[in-house]
Amino acid sequence: MSAATAQPSLQTMANAIRALAMDAVEAAKSGHPGMPMGMADVATVLFTKFLKFDPKNPTWADRDRFILSAGHGSMLMYALSHLTGYERMTIDEIKRFRQLGSLTPGHPEVDPSLGIEMTTGPLGQGVSTAVGFALAERITNARFGDALVDHTTYVIASDGDLMEGVSHEACSLAGHLGLNRLIVLWDDNHISIDGSTDLSFTDDTPARFRSYGWNTISVDGHDMAAVEAAIAQARTSTDKPTLIACRTIIGKGAPNKANSHSCHGSPLGADEIAATRTAIDWPHAPFVVPDDVLSAWRAAGARSADAFAAWTARLDAQDADTRAAFQAAFGRGVPAALNDTIVALKAKISADKPSWATRVASGNTLDALVPAIAELVGGSADLTPSNNTKAKGSVDVEGRGKFAGQYVRYGVREHGMATLMNGMALHGGVIPYGGTFMQFADYCRPSIRLAALMKQRSIFVMTHDSIGLGEDGPTHQPVEHLAALRAIPNLLVLRPGDAVETAECWQLAVERVNGPSILALTRQNVPTHRTEHTAENRSARGAYVLAEAEGVRKATILATGSEVSLAMEARAALQADGIGTAVVSMPSWELFAEQDAAYQAAVLGDGVRVGVEAAARLGWDRWLGSNGVFIGMPGFGESAPYQELYKHFGITAEAVVSAVKARL
Amino acid sequence: MSAATAQPSLQTMANAIRALAMDAVEAAKSGHPGMPMGMADVATVLFTKFLKFDPKNPTWADRDRFILSAGHGSMLMYALSHLTGYERMTIDEIKRFRQLGSLTPGHPEVDPSLGIEMTTGPLGQGVSTAVGFALAERITNARFGDALVDHTTYVIASDGDLMEGVSHEACSLAGHLGLNRLIVLWDDNHISIDGSTDLSFTDDTPARFRSYGWNTISVDGHDMAAVEAAIAQARTSTDKPTLIACRTIIGKGAPNKANSHSCHGSPLGADEIAATRTAIDWPHAPFVVPDDVLSAWRAAGARSADAFAAWTARLDAQDADTRAAFQAAFGRGVPAALNDTIVALKAKISADKPSWATRVASGNTLDALVPAIAELVGGSADLTPSNNTKAKGSVDVEGRGKFAGQYVRYGVREHGMATLMNGMALHGGVIPYGGTFMQFADYCRPSIRLAALMKQRSIFVMTHDSIGLGEDGPTHQPVEHLAALRAIPNLLVLRPGDAVETAECWQLAVERVNGPSILALTRQNVPTHRTEHTAENRSARGAYVLAEAEGVRKATILATGSEVSLAMEARAALQADGIGTAVVSMPSWELFAEQDAAYQAAVLGDGVRVGVEAAARLGWDRWLGSNGVFIGMPGFGESAPYQELYKHFGITAEAVVSAVKARL
Repeated sequence: MSAATAQPSLQTMANAIRALAMDAVEAAKSGHPGMPMGMADVATVLFTKFLKFDPKNPTWADRDRFILSAGHGSMLMYALSHLTGYERMTIDEIKRFRQLGSLTPGHPEVDPSLGIEMTTGPLGQGVSTAVGFALAERITNARFGDALVDHTTYVIASDGDLMEGVSHEACSLAGHLGLNRLIVLWDDNHISIDGSTDLSFTDDTPARFRSYGWNTISVDGHDMAAVEAAIAQARTSTDKPTLIACRTIIGKGAPNKANSHSCHGSPLGADEIAATRTAIDWPHAPFVVPDDVLSAWRAAGARSADAFAAWTARLDAQDADTRAAFQAAFGRGVPAALNDTIVALKAKISADKPSWATRVASGNTLDALVPAIAELVGGSADLTPSNNTKAKGSVDVEGRGKFAGQYVRYGVREHGMATLMNGMALHGGVIPYGGTFMQFADYCRPSIRLAALMKQRSIFVMTHDSIGLGEDGPTHQPVEHLAALRAIPNLLVLRPGDAVETAECWQLAVERVNGPSILALTRQNVPTHRTEHTAENRSARGAYVLAEAEGVRKATILATGSEVSLAMEARAALQADGIGTAVVSMPSWELFAEQDAAYQAAVLGDGVRVGVEAAARLGWDRWLGSNGVFIGMPGFGESAPYQELYKHFGITAEAVVSAVKARL
Repeated sequence: MSAATAQPSLQTMANAIRALAMDAVEAAKSGHPGMPMGMADVATVLFTKFLKFDPKNPTWADRDRFILSAGHGSMLMYALSHLTGYERMTIDEIKRFRQLGSLTPGHPEVDPSLGIEMTTGPLGQGVSTAVGFALAERITNARFGDALVDHTTYVIASDGDLMEGVSHEACSLAGHLGLNRLIVLWDDNHISIDGSTDLSFTDDTPARFRSYGWNTISVDGHDMAAVEAAIAQARTSTDKPTLIACRTIIGKGAPNKANSHSCHGSPLGADEIAATRTAIDWPHAPFVVPDDVLSAWRAAGARSADAFAAWTARLDAQDADTRAAFQAAFGRGVPAALNDTIVALKAKISADKPSWATRVASGNTLDALVPAIAELVGGSADLTPSNNTKAKGSVDVEGRGKFAGQYVRYGVREHGMATLMNGMALHGGVIPYGGTFMQFADYCRPSIRLAALMKQRSIFVMTHDSIGLGEDGPTHQPVEHLAALRAIPNLLVLRPGDAVETAECWQLAVERVNGPSILALTRQNVPTHRTEHTAENRSARGAYVLAEAEGVRKATILATGSEVSLAMEARAALQADGIGTAVVSMPSWELFAEQDAAYQAAVLGDGVRVGVEAAARLGWDRWLGSNGVFIGMPGFGESAPYQELYKHFGITAEAVVSAVKARL
């Protein structure tokens, strides 16, 4: 083979990844060189032969999606981003690996303009979220056709990803749905932090995936021709996702540390780096990629420019309605029909004054929203009749070729559901919402957090939100969940107090294009408090005076959700005794915290404050001030009819009245 | 067949379960009749032919364990408890199903005196926790021999249990470890709440379990002879756990509602109950079990009385040391060596004044505790070198016949680890602790909550507890986790500030026989603040004055964990400016909240209060009062060396000093 004028080999291109990974980790004095070096060959095949992407048009809706589930191998992602020509991913950013404000943090953080489709690091999330990408692709394909939506989701996943339980939930569902556009490249390197995976992990992983209805292929991950053949074969699948088990050597190229956990999560060190440079014939200074190698990579990054142009032409050739619908769906904005639909619904509720559980009010809101907003795709983790998540007339996304529809049957897979929702939100074209019992917010929590961190519009419908669910008892009664969810940054927690607020909270959730929301909803009925219609979304300020005191305000009762009803009862009793009492409904602490001090002070009032919420106290002191009283749950719940439980735990209008009088 | 004098058939005995289940659900007007009716036949075979248990001696350490993972079918558990003769489970308790204060809440709540080994209801937890029972059985068998420990763990699990991701983690590990004493009876009824499981669940479940290294057997769950043969076969396994797929009809016996989701979670109704009585030939009034049927069940409950007597004799025949060790291990008390070991360690630390990360201090504490306390069984979710959980000289529990040891390699299975720990704590004989990054407390959260609800001594070692972990970035930096964990009732959250407090916190965790604890530990080094040795465990009061003000106390800095160091620096600067400043270390809010008001007031002081914790504010207002300042995290973290992050987020001694001065 004559090297002088030849194109750099794929192997040399892969070695560019290895060199950048080991050099960046060394410079940062922390990071994970082993995984990028082990998977460099597989990634090189994928990015040079298959992946449809265009660094000049990185947010192209019909690009293939690549997800590095094993996010600790972030230098693989950054090296690929730099080499293939994402403009902002300069060599200086690579040199600033893991430094404050760099584009190269310890784990990849979502930024499609860099080719980073999602934030990864917590194991299991990437491969599971990828299922949501692949599902959104098929759903939007069913809506817009092959001309506009026809792409593949590729994942690199580690042993750890596949040990995580969420991978079971999501991959089982992927098999059930027959998501043939999903291809998972498993980095089967037999090494984890503790040592050999044999210490704890002896699954027959391909057999496991076949039990889910996947294709499986096994290859030597350093035999590039074999990897190419495997991916090509996977792409022919018409009815199943594919797992390609790539047997690799972690840290491949490092002569002394490869195939050992010593190269997993630590720099190689100067000596081993020097030895590696020799071993892989990479006689270049740190961070230097020779021009010919860089050119070859940039050419790989330019492969799909024609495909992009052709796709753009196809989009332009659509009729105006389709084009507008496509752009609206992928534009990630606020749906045009949202506000009018909600205002009309509120007017009707204020007139009808129903006594609905807020979960029923939510179902009623969805009956209006889903037909009006084509992007909404709902679902439930096998609690459809309890969560009231299926809008009238909506159709199941059955899978296996049938992807037209708006409703996903997630099965008893709360965590998997949350990951799929995140993937759908990240993919674009759909706005996902999904339901479970609020208790099981705990099961979804890692993905709820990730939605908040990634600023994605995933809408979680959490019903049965307190002891108000009654007989199912303490295993099913959220007590600490409101506090625990309020603690998550950038998560909007919404607990509406009646059917009008429920509609308003849905509006806030759908409007919130840069973050997730949770609707905490009751199982039990509550009256309509907002009987005077306002077009204004009063819940948007987080808390507001629902009922002002008659006479001088001496007391303010702060309440959320079903406890707004108790507050209103207590107010009536106090007013009857001549004690001017206001009721403040607080559907969202986060939104109230964003209001100016004058508004907050006016709402909270100067008098005695009583907070009432059938939940833990944690966080309430912020609103109660120094003379406040909290009435809520002292610990776990009990199993009994809910009316008895409220009495048993002393969460009653009488208790509120007594507390106010005791303080006055 | 002549019925007059014959023993009631197994079928008739099973029908007693069916009748009690449908009658109790009907009386409660809520509950799940379908599952108990569907699995009545399987349960009857298990309880009459195999299960080793003695309702007269329900906490017999060597009893078989039965776990109803599908806890919504609680009436199956209660019917079995009543029928087999657990004294307190009277027919009146059955009649009070789902009522306040009954022994028959909506989902089973742990009470071995009733035959209820654990609290179930959140799907996936039972089958996964059962793996911990089965592991503890083998570990204690390795320690005490077949004469004292030789029993089997049986589980009834539903489709939903097996859809949950945690079942993947725990069952994969069960296969890896070769837990042959674990037998899972899968209620394969093809029905879930949304309808047919085909809507979302088409795994080949037996193939999946074989991929984990399990035996699998498939039977007709209503063919009692076949069920008997399957369990008998499973009991012969020497190296693998067994899944028995029991094809059943949900609601079996109800002529119109069987095999439909309509009988899953609602009462059958009077008409269908009448029809069922006819169909199953059960002409008895509600809650009436004829004497002959009850006698037959009571005889089943008395089957193992001889085995219990023989076991007692074997225990009595042990040498005194073995007997004492066995009774100490299964006595669930405070280990005798605990206090002296900790006091000696503290004396050494106070003298040596090391600058250790608290994770290192924890490892050092374990080096002392593990050799002294035979019951301690540790582990990590594949982060052993980071969590510092493996004590010097401790030995891996390898599994597959090798169960002598004190350390479990859980793999990248945080949730599975937490369930196994709970199972070990419930089983008795061991005190489980296990490590992961604190970020992944989210993955374990459903099981941490269940440990708290069940009052079990599971000790979670959560290292890398803040932005102090540095470069791994926001996916790995806990921000909201302290607040979210503090919100869980009956969970002790411990965040020690130096090596002495770390030892004290370990003591508190091991002493806490009635609940779980979490140790939140730093990655980064901190100095030793407690340089004067005290035998007293000062952390036991939750918060205490670590450094009193010189002169009049004008300010109090409240801090936890690594931020105690910042507080001490700030105090030095303020005292240099003549501002009397105390530092309060708050290793546990829960313990401080239990102190009397006078102690709390003395600790918190009257002056300006500044709280400093590299975490979310939620909950801090309780301690800060109306004039307090909080210095902490405004949102998610960033990836950078940790010293830069503390500066970037303004969590510095300078910021504390400025805040105090601004308020004075």
